[in-house]
Formats: sequence, C-alpha cells, structure tokens
Amino acid sequence: MTGDVRVIPLRGIPELDEGDDLAALLVDAAARAGGFEGDDVVVVAQKAVSKVEGRVVDLAEVEPSSSAHELAGGGDPRRVEVILRESREIVRSRPPLVIAETLHGFVCASAGVDASNAKGHDTLVLLPVDPDASADRLCDRIRKLAGIGVGVIVSDSFGRAWRQGTTDVALGVSGIVALRDLTGERDSMGYELHATEIAIADEIAGAAQLVMGKTDGIPAAIVRGLAVEGDGRGSDLLMPRERDLFR
Amino acid sequence: MTGDVRVIPLRGIPELDEGDDLAALLVDAAARAGGFEGDDVVVVAQKAVSKVEGRVVDLAEVEPSSSAHELAGGGDPRRVEVILRESREIVRSRPPLVIAETLHGFVCASAGVDASNAKGHDTLVLLPVDPDASADRLCDRIRKLAGIGVGVIVSDSFGRAWRQGTTDVALGVSGIVALRDLTGERDSMGYELHATEIAIADEIAGAAQLVMGKTDGIPAAIVRGLAVEGDGRGSDLLMPRERDLFR
Repeated sequence: MTGDVRVIPLRGIPELDEGDDLAALLVDAAARAGGFEGDDVVVVAQKAVSKVEGRVVDLAEVEPSSSAHELAGGGDPRRVEVILRESREIVRSRPPLVIAETLHGFVCASAGVDASNAKGHDTLVLLPVDPDASADRLCDRIRKLAGIGVGVIVSDSFGRAWRQGTTDVALGVSGIVALRDLTGERDSMGYELHATEIAIADEIAGAAQLVMGKTDGIPAAIVRGLAVEGDGRGSDLLMPRERDLFR
Repeated sequence: MTGDVRVIPLRGIPELDEGDDLAALLVDAAARAGGFEGDDVVVVAQKAVSKVEGRVVDLAEVEPSSSAHELAGGGDPRRVEVILRESREIVRSRPPLVIAETLHGFVCASAGVDASNAKGHDTLVLLPVDPDASADRLCDRIRKLAGIGVGVIVSDSFGRAWRQGTTDVALGVSGIVALRDLTGERDSMGYELHATEIAIADEIAGAAQLVMGKTDGIPAAIVRGLAVEGDGRGSDLLMPRERDLFR
C-alpha cells in the first residue's frame, strides 16, 4: 500500500561546469532539505548532468555541412549540424523543428540538443553519452558520500506526438524500476489486466519537474515515499523498433 | 518559489455505479485524509468518472459491423465495434492493437475503451462524453459540499509513441492551468526560452498515478502544494491537426 509521496526541490545548486562533483552538490542540497531517506529517488535534469560531463559545444566552432544548411530552413545551420551528429535518424522535420532519433534511441525534438549561454558564449548542451551510466555514477557517488542508497533518474523535457507541451521523462535510471508490469495482476474487481505496463520512471520524472522549473535554477528534486527499488534502465523505456507503429 | 509538493491517495472509495455522487465520495475520502486545502488539485481516474456517468456498455448487447470484424483480427469484434463508434479516425492498427483518434480528439489505444466486469457482466467503459465538463461538475460540487475551491483533473493512462509503458495524462481539467507557457521567460542564466510549454496538467496526472495504482482500488488522489490556479482545459493539451507531424 502506497502512502503519501513528497516531491522536494533541491535548492542552492550553483551553475555547473565540467568536472564539478554534482553528486556532492546534490548531497549538500539534500542535507539543507533535511537529508536523504532510504528509498528516495533523486531526479536530476539532464542539462546539469551534461554540463558536468562536458557535453557542451561552442556554437562558434561548428562547421555546418550542406545537409545541415538544407534542413535548417531559416534556423541556424550550426545548430542543425550538431543535431545531425547526435542523431541516428531524422524522424520528421518542419524547419526549424527537427524530430530525431538520437544515437541512444530516444525520439525527441532536436535530438535533445539544447541552447545555452554558459559563460557568455552561445553553446549547445548535448545529452549525456550514456544516461544510464550517468545515473549509475551519481547513484554510486551519493552512496559513498551520504552513506545511503537512493535511486537516480536523469530527466529531460520531451514533447509528445498528438499532445501539446512537454513532460519530463527519464533518460537514465539507476536503482529503481523503470517500467512496472501489471500484466496478469488483477484490478480491484478481480479483472485480469492485460499488457499493462506503467512507465513509472517517466511519471516520477514528471512529478519532479513540477518543483524544478526551468526559470528558477532548481536542477534536481527528491521524490520520496515510493517503494520502487529495482534494476530498471532508462533504455527499458524505449519502444523496440519492431513494435513501433510511428516511424 | 515552489515548496514541497505532496501526493495523497484518496482511499475507501467504493466500487462505483451510475448516478453515484462521486464528488461526495471524494470529499469524504479527503476528510479521512485530513481534508482539502485551498490549492489542492484532485485527480480522478477516468474510469471512476465514466462509471458514475453511465458510460458503460454491456458487451453482450453489441452487434459488430463487418469493418469491426475485419479490424479485430483474432480479438473480440464487439470490442472493436465499440472502439469504432468512439472514434473519429483509426490512426494505426496492428490487431488486436488499435490506435484511434477519439470523438474528442484524443489519440490513444482503443479510443480509451476499457474492459471491465462490473457486476459479473463483461462490460466496456467508455471515456466521458466531455471530460472537461465532467471536471467542471466535480469542481462545482466539491466546492458546494466542502466549501473550498480545488482544481480537478480527470485522468487516464495513455501509451506514447516511441516509448514503452503508459503514463497518466489529463483528459479533463477544471480550475487549474493545463499548459504552462514559458516562452519569453528567461532561465537562471538569463537565456530566453523559446516555444517552451510544459504540459503541467499531464505531469500532475502522472504524479497522482504514482499513488493510485490499478490493482488496489484507489481511483483518486490529491496533489497539494502547487500554485496552478487557472482556467486551463484538457482540450488545450490536444495538438492541433495542422501542427501534428505524426498523422
């Protein structure tokens, strides 16, 4: 039986740079909020993770290819060039909007490439090379520093087909289930559920977004009170190509 | 500045039937959980709303058409017949899976038609005729009974293109914003955000699902601590056809 769930913003994390000890900053921020508890899930915005991992490209140093020029329409071909480099396939494009499948297999706008202006430069922030590995590293280092096992989600804001607006989803997952499979369980009336899998890590990421916000510099939150320990991966949430009806 | 957010399951709501006073049951359940507070958002599963609104079809009384037989593959053609009646368009099908645009404009599996076995009959539960109106009615009646204004979301579990598993989304919305538009606002580094709209009502619905569960008979939850008062509608979350890249 699930009790109340709390979503707690982690404040006071400074602007991040390559090599910063993000886990230590998360542990400090959590300490200011009363400390971690045993089954906490820590949700961290992808942009924060990417910055400490050095996944930042200086726009001035990008040489766009001819296909980037073509796809850019009125937009910046250097940005499109970086999107192409991060993509396995362009799924749809309507300039300046590009929906791409990333090298990891995520289908999202701009292959997850985000504009930023770190230190006065126009830069682009790329997705982590391996978001599950990023989540694992944060998980391990938090355990080391805080002496407590927490789950970690590396989240990002994705648009959706057919629906307006973004919701945050889980790119990388460590220490928790990603999908909860209810197939074969019975509902409260005894009716057997079929093919029901809940993308619980995505819902946790979305819940965290409610307190994170893009405008107030809160790159992480704790989601507390869920019994979701497990060995799920962000990659579990990717629809296998052969089951994909929308490509 | 957003503080902590709490997600509180509403327990003890009995199996529902047409004409039941769902708002009164929600108010009672909330009272047992300490009562509503001023900016609470009450998330109610669509199935609960549909049942009290009588949106239930007895499978034995459905006469399938020939196109239902065709689309059903090995599945039950009566179920497909009901899906067709609830649909404006079949977006994709791979029997027995049917992705349809409902008469309201939602794109989802089976046009939102759900199997159930109310009172020993095999029945199908349809989406509410007008989920925003359902949310309005619950909102009004809760205000009347509890003397307090809360937001209401009527939620359902939808699959997504390219991602595994369902997340709960908002079909009907009353008293809160549905989309939060950040366009023109600046991030913590002063960088202006472009075309950033957050589907906040969907994230609230997903957060509520974390405590609702399909197997333990909790059809509603309170999401507390968000400042989201507004006049959003569930229909705000539908991608306008002309901007839809995936149909």
